[in-house]
Parts: sequence; C-alpha cells; structure tokens
Amino acid sequence: MWHDILRSQCGLIAGKPVVAGVSGGPDSLCLLDVLQEAGYTVIVAHFNHCLRLDADREAAAVQTMAAARGLDFITDSADVGAHAANQGFSLEQAARILRYHFLFAAARVRGAQAVAVGHTADDQAETVLMHFLRGAGLSGLKGMSPRTRLPEFDPGIPLVRPLLGLWRADTEAYCRERGLQPVYDLTNADPAYLRNRLRLELIPELEQHNPRFKQALVRSAQVLQGDFELLGEVLDAAWERAVCGQEAGYVAFARPALEGMSLALRRNLFRRAATTLRPGLADLDFAALERAAALQPADLTGGLRIFVEADKVYLAACEADLPLGDYPRVGEPATLVSHLDLDGGWTLSADSLPLEGDDWSSNTNPWTAWLDAELVGNSLMVRARRAGDRFQPLGMPDGTLTLQDFFVNLKLPQRARANWPLVCAGEQIVWVAGFRIAHPLRVTAGTRRVLRLHLRKK
Amino acid sequence: MWHDILRSQCGLIAGKPVVAGVSGGPDSLCLLDVLQEAGYTVIVAHFNHCLRLDADREAAAVQTMAAARGLDFITDSADVGAHAANQGFSLEQAARILRYHFLFAAARVRGAQAVAVGHTADDQAETVLMHFLRGAGLSGLKGMSPRTRLPEFDPGIPLVRPLLGLWRADTEAYCRERGLQPVYDLTNADPAYLRNRLRLELIPELEQHNPRFKQALVRSAQVLQGDFELLGEVLDAAWERAVCGQEAGYVAFARPALEGMSLALRRNLFRRAATTLRPGLADLDFAALERAAALQPADLTGGLRIFVEADKVYLAACEADLPLGDYPRVGEPATLVSHLDLDGGWTLSADSLPLEGDDWSSNTNPWTAWLDAELVGNSLMVRARRAGDRFQPLGMPDGTLTLQDFFVNLKLPQRARANWPLVCAGEQIVWVAGFRIAHPLRVTAGTRRVLRLHLRKK
Repeated sequence: MWHDILRSQCGLIAGKPVVAGVSGGPDSLCLLDVLQEAGYTVIVAHFNHCLRLDADREAAAVQTMAAARGLDFITDSADVGAHAANQGFSLEQAARILRYHFLFAAARVRGAQAVAVGHTADDQAETVLMHFLRGAGLSGLKGMSPRTRLPEFDPGIPLVRPLLGLWRADTEAYCRERGLQPVYDLTNADPAYLRNRLRLELIPELEQHNPRFKQALVRSAQVLQGDFELLGEVLDAAWERAVCGQEAGYVAFARPALEGMSLALRRNLFRRAATTLRPGLADLDFAALERAAALQPADLTGGLRIFVEADKVYLAACEADLPLGDYPRVGEPATLVSHLDLDGGWTLSADSLPLEGDDWSSNTNPWTAWLDAELVGNSLMVRARRAGDRFQPLGMPDGTLTLQDFFVNLKLPQRARANWPLVCAGEQIVWVAGFRIAHPLRVTAGTRRVLRLHLRKK
Repeated sequence: MWHDILRSQCGLIAGKPVVAGVSGGPDSLCLLDVLQEAGYTVIVAHFNHCLRLDADREAAAVQTMAAARGLDFITDSADVGAHAANQGFSLEQAARILRYHFLFAAARVRGAQAVAVGHTADDQAETVLMHFLRGAGLSGLKGMSPRTRLPEFDPGIPLVRPLLGLWRADTEAYCRERGLQPVYDLTNADPAYLRNRLRLELIPELEQHNPRFKQALVRSAQVLQGDFELLGEVLDAAWERAVCGQEAGYVAFARPALEGMSLALRRNLFRRAATTLRPGLADLDFAALERAAALQPADLTGGLRIFVEADKVYLAACEADLPLGDYPRVGEPATLVSHLDLDGGWTLSADSLPLEGDDWSSNTNPWTAWLDAELVGNSLMVRARRAGDRFQPLGMPDGTLTLQDFFVNLKLPQRARANWPLVCAGEQIVWVAGFRIAHPLRVTAGTRRVLRLHLRKK
C-alpha cells in the first residue's frame, strides 16, 4: 500500500531526500515514520509558530525525536501573530504562508525532491467543506491532491501528501502501534480558528444529516480531482490554440480559432482569461459570459470587457489596454513626397502618372487610391485626426460628415482612430488611408494625370 | 430581462404552448404570470398529491385562477403516499416521479414545447447542498439548469426553469406587486422532509459561517454548470472515438485509441463506462481506476474488472460477459477432410501435397501449418479442449506440457480457450490452430509428402 501511495500517487523516487514538515502531532509523526520505513532519507523540518506557551517545548521534543532516529533536523521560527497583524492576514493564513516558506526554503537548501506534509482525510473533508461554504469552483471543491505544486513558494519542488487516505484516528492508532509519542496541539480545540469550528461544530452537525458525510466529501474530492485534471488539459490545449497574444492588460484570442470551438469551451476560455487578468476574481456575470461566448461585445465583471474585432477577440479592462499592433499610425504631421514610413510597420507611397488605361476605374483594392493629380496638387501632408475634422467620402456628392461619424460607420476600433493616417492637401482630407478618397478629387472624364497613393504593410 | 431568460437561457420559442406546473404557491404563480406576460400560451397543470387535507381546495383555487386568466387547465391526482409505500420511495421521491409523469404527459397531449417549473435560487441552493451532503460529483454539485432534459419522463420535451435567478422572497414580492394570491403549502414547514430540514435548520446554521452562503452556492452551481457541460462534450467526443462495442454486460474500448489519450481522459472514460454498466454506482476504487488508466488489468468496484487484450480493453463484471466476437470456435468434434467451417466466421482447410520447394521451411504465417503428411495420417478431427489435454509444441523435443499451461503462455484470453479449435489425429493434438504444431509431426529431411493446414477468417 505505502509503496503505491509514495511512488505512484506522490511521485517520490528512491535515493533523494524528502523534507517532512513535522509539528510533532500524530499526523506528522505517522508521516515521518512511514517515509523512513519506506527507505527515504527524511529531513525533519519543524516550524515554530511562537503562538503558544509550549511552542519551544514542542520544538525540543521534535528535535530529540529526530536525533533518536538519526535524522537531520532543521527548524526556524517566526512571530506569526505579528506577521498576521502587519499583513492583514488571519492567524491561519499567516501561519500557513510562513510555514511553507520555511519548508520550501529547507527543501531547496537540502536538495530535497519534495516537501511532505501530514494532511489526512479529515483535513481533506475540512478543506472541501471550507471551500464549499465560500462558494468555490472545481479547483476548490476538488480539495487537496497527493502531489501538487505551490508556485508561490517554489516553482519546481512539489508538495506531497501521502496520508490523504488515512483518517486522523488512523494516524493516532498508527502512533500507538508503533510506540510513537505525539505532542498534542491544544490550539486544535480553539474555536477561534475556522477550521476548528468546522471540525468541532459544523461537521458533527452535518453528520446528523449524513452519518458518512466526511467519507462522502473525500470521495467527491477524488472524483472532482479527475474532472479538474481533465478540464485543465482541455483548457490548456484550447488556450494554446486560441490565444494569440497576452499582456498585463489584455488577452487576445484568434477569432477563427474561437469560432471552431463549442460555446462551453469558449465560456471556459473567457473565464480563464478573466481570472488570468484578475486573480481572485469571484463574481462573473454569467449572462455576460454567455454573450462573450457568442462572440458578442460584453461587460464581464471587475471592469473587464470583451472587444470583438474582425479577426481577434480581446478581453481587457479598456480599449486603451489593447495592443496597437497591426494598425498603421502617424505621429507628428509629415510631408508625403514619394514615400513615408509609418508606425506599426506600414509605408505610404505616392506616384503621379499620366492617365493611361483604366486601372483606376476597376480598383477594388482599398490599400490603393487613384485621384485626379491636378485637383489634388503637389503638396501632400500625412497627419492624424484633429477635433472637428470633416470629410466628403467618395459616393457622397454633396456635403460632408464628421470624421468621427465616418470612423464609426467603418467600425474602426477606437484605439486605431487616434493615429490613423489621413492624407491631406492643405485643410482637405484627400484619403482616409485604406478606406476612402474624397469625392471631389476622384478621377473623372476630365482627368489628365492621376495620383496613385498606396498604403502597405512592410 | 425576462426575454433573455425565456429565450436564451430556457430556449423557449414564440407561438408554441408551454405547460406550467402550478402548485398555487408564490413561485408557481410568479412563473405563470411571467410566461403569460411574455406572450406564451400557458397550459396550467396542477398535480394533486393527495397528501394534505386542503389539497382539493388548492386544486380548486388554481383552477379558478386559470379560468379567470382565460387559461387552459389540466389536473390529475394520485395517491403519493401509497405509491411511496409500494415502491419503497420517500414521499418526496414518489411525489416528484408522479408529478413529472403527469406534467410531461400533459405536454405531449397538448403539443407543448416545454414543461416549465417554478424552481428558484433557494431551491437551487437547497439542491446543491443536498447533493453535497451525499457526496456528489459535478453532475450533482452543478445543481439545476435553466433548460434540461429528463429522459426518464420524456426523451424530447425539455424541462425549463425560468425562475432560477430569483430568490423565493423575490417571487413573493412579485406576487404582492402583481396582486396574485398564492396558496401556502403548510408541509413546507414540516421537518419530516429533508428539504425542509435543510431550509429551516441547516442553511441558517451554515449562514452563521458565511452570511452569503446561499448566494455562494448558486454562484458555484453556475460555474460548475459550465465545467460540466464542457466535460460532457469532451467525454462524448472521446467516447465516440474510443468505444468500439457495448452490450449490457460490457464496454469495449479500442486500445490504440486509448493509447492516444491522456491518463485523465482515460480515467474519466472508465468512470463513465462503470456508471454506464452500473447506474448509481457510488464507490469507485481510485487506485484501481489509476491502474485501469495505465491500461493494466484492475478490479474497479461493483464487481467490475478491466480486461486488457491485444487491441481491446474491456470493462465487464466477468470474462463470460465479453464478446466471443472474433475468436474461432468449434462446438461438437468434427472430421476435417478438405475444409471445415467453424463458429466465429472461420474456416479450416487441409491439403496433402508432394514436398516441393521449401515453402514450409520459411513459413512465418501462424495461420498456416506444415506437417509430415505420412506421420499425421489421413484421419483428422477438429475438437475443443478436454480436461487433461497435453501437447508437445514445436521446439520442445522431449516431454509434453498441459494444454492449460500452453494457453496461459500464449496469453490467450480465458473465454477463447474453451472452444479453441484443436486439430487432432487420434488422441494426439496435431495443431493448436493458429499457434503451434506438434513437434514430432514437423517436416524433416525424411518427409515425402506434406500436410498443409490453414485457418482463415472468412
């Protein structure tokens, strides 16, 4: 049994040391004994939380025990109460953070393959219940795994929990059988701690509704771990296919990739994107998630919005966070003689040609514009929009419209508009590059020379 | 809001009637009013559970209300108490079964597009908690969906729950605002019902640990619904690829397909196969599931075993449940002259030929055997194994081994052995068809005529 658990479930290999977190209670003594019996080199690591009067006595007891077993012993202490007060953590949170920092630091220093802790099936049931009360998703309800990583403490060294299959009573019986002398932690009875209240009050209460409630929780956790792992794989693979860009402020999806995926998968991808941008995000608006999955613009939560463009779908707090990436951009106004390099990797070019053939009349390429060279004149400027810009697009023989309305009609994304290149002759917009020429400057029967403008990506 | 819920979430379309389950309480009155206000043709369906003294009065009140609204009314009654006693159900189970039978029958008769029921967010929280107490997987913890199918009542007509986003207090407020007069069900206060105990005792208790506990449950359920849907899609697709046969007693997987899948996916497939064969199966042995996922033989639970063969992996209670499918089988002993048809779609043939060339010496085809025709003689029988059969396989110059050991060495599945064709001359096994000829009958330098035996699938 232990071989299977230590090797297969916890992934421990022979020959490399293991750091065992040993408080001195029955769970950790059982852990230590099991590891040593299975032939592992165990480093006994004891963290003194300085929370109780007898904390030093416990540390000394663990040290003595380690020495009697011929095991390496390592200890450290910190003022958990002070840390909690400083950081605004609960005592439990502060104790956990400091303890794991110590254990993983010990593992790094000693070249250990893993940190082992003595969590039992009772701890599992309490953990699942705690998550359930808070309203957790799968990642919480699945509880603790026999082998996991805690990247906030160490990116590579795993945390292993060989005792998840034993109840606390089993570890006590084990200690009695093996003649081990546990030290009992009196704070385990203190109802000031949430976990203790669950163990001492709520779980007995729930057991009145289902006498095998704890067993039910542990079984649920096992099933949900399988679901969680599979979902993780599916989402990782889909993320790999669909995400085409990611920065602190946004996640960009390739729209064609999303279109090939089911609604359920898209919903999960957007959910993952939201928690990537806002770790700890709790309340998602599910109707908005539904609209997002249908590739509609939507306000999720935490200020996150879905922006849908021609070939990309973005999740970001505001459009200003989105990449300018592919858009042509002009900074300061510049003169266009024969060609001009723009930001974003684009080039504008201008040629004046005698009117020959009818290339111009069959032009369907939006990146090329044909104009009457004499009407346009010789002095071309390229600039970004200014407040109050108006434009008379080809096909609109009378009057003008605001450039703002023109951009809106084009569905050009907001962030692309501010620096979009406008080719001008004096005050007149000659060409909104890539979109439309000015109606009065079009090539007509009277045109003798044409001006050909061309915008292209390098 | 209601348009979005009724159309998008519940999938109701305009113009087709909806059967609404109306008890007369505030939830169902709110449901009815919402549907009618949204323009649906509502058929008011009231099921009289005959559980209370005032049950008939309630039925009459609902009927009067339906008439006042100009709505079609349909009712039926059953003795729920008697049904529960007869079938060994709880009153709640019996009431649910009879009520849904009535509602879906009404929907079929009236050509309704859906059955609508008035479950609220409170019902959702209670349902999730009930499943949690029992130790449910995702399918339970995800709670109720706005639109679902209950194939045990009707394969096609959906059940819709438009009020899942409202709390019970909201439906009461709605009734007050709209001047609707609900009938209150006094059994809702009866702690004999599990749901009532949860609502009246346990949930208030849990709210002391998290004042927004019910909200947390409802939010969890929404998130888990997304996970459940995605997992379902992934498993459906994998099942489609991997399952190559299924009967009441077994599920057969194509081994190469499994080999291309992750451990997590295989684990989930075997779990689904186990619950397919044993609906309601609760306790899976997770270590066994791990071995199964590694494509090792394993005992799951409920007597189900994983059988691994060359190109298939079976889940079944015993090997006798597995298909004989492809194996050649012989029933009664039969004489082999030139050819013989076997069960399983195989044919055995025999030819006596002058020894020419050396085809026989380079024979690597296990389906063809070359023997010394004169040593074998003319009288060939084909029969199945008998107790005590022994055999001297080619390559074993001295002694014999039991056919049993020979089969075990071959790793021939148990169920294929009983009727495996043995070609015999008198008492001597000449050829274990498809495997090995008898050593003393091999072709040697002294052979003048050869006997060629051939086993092939038609």
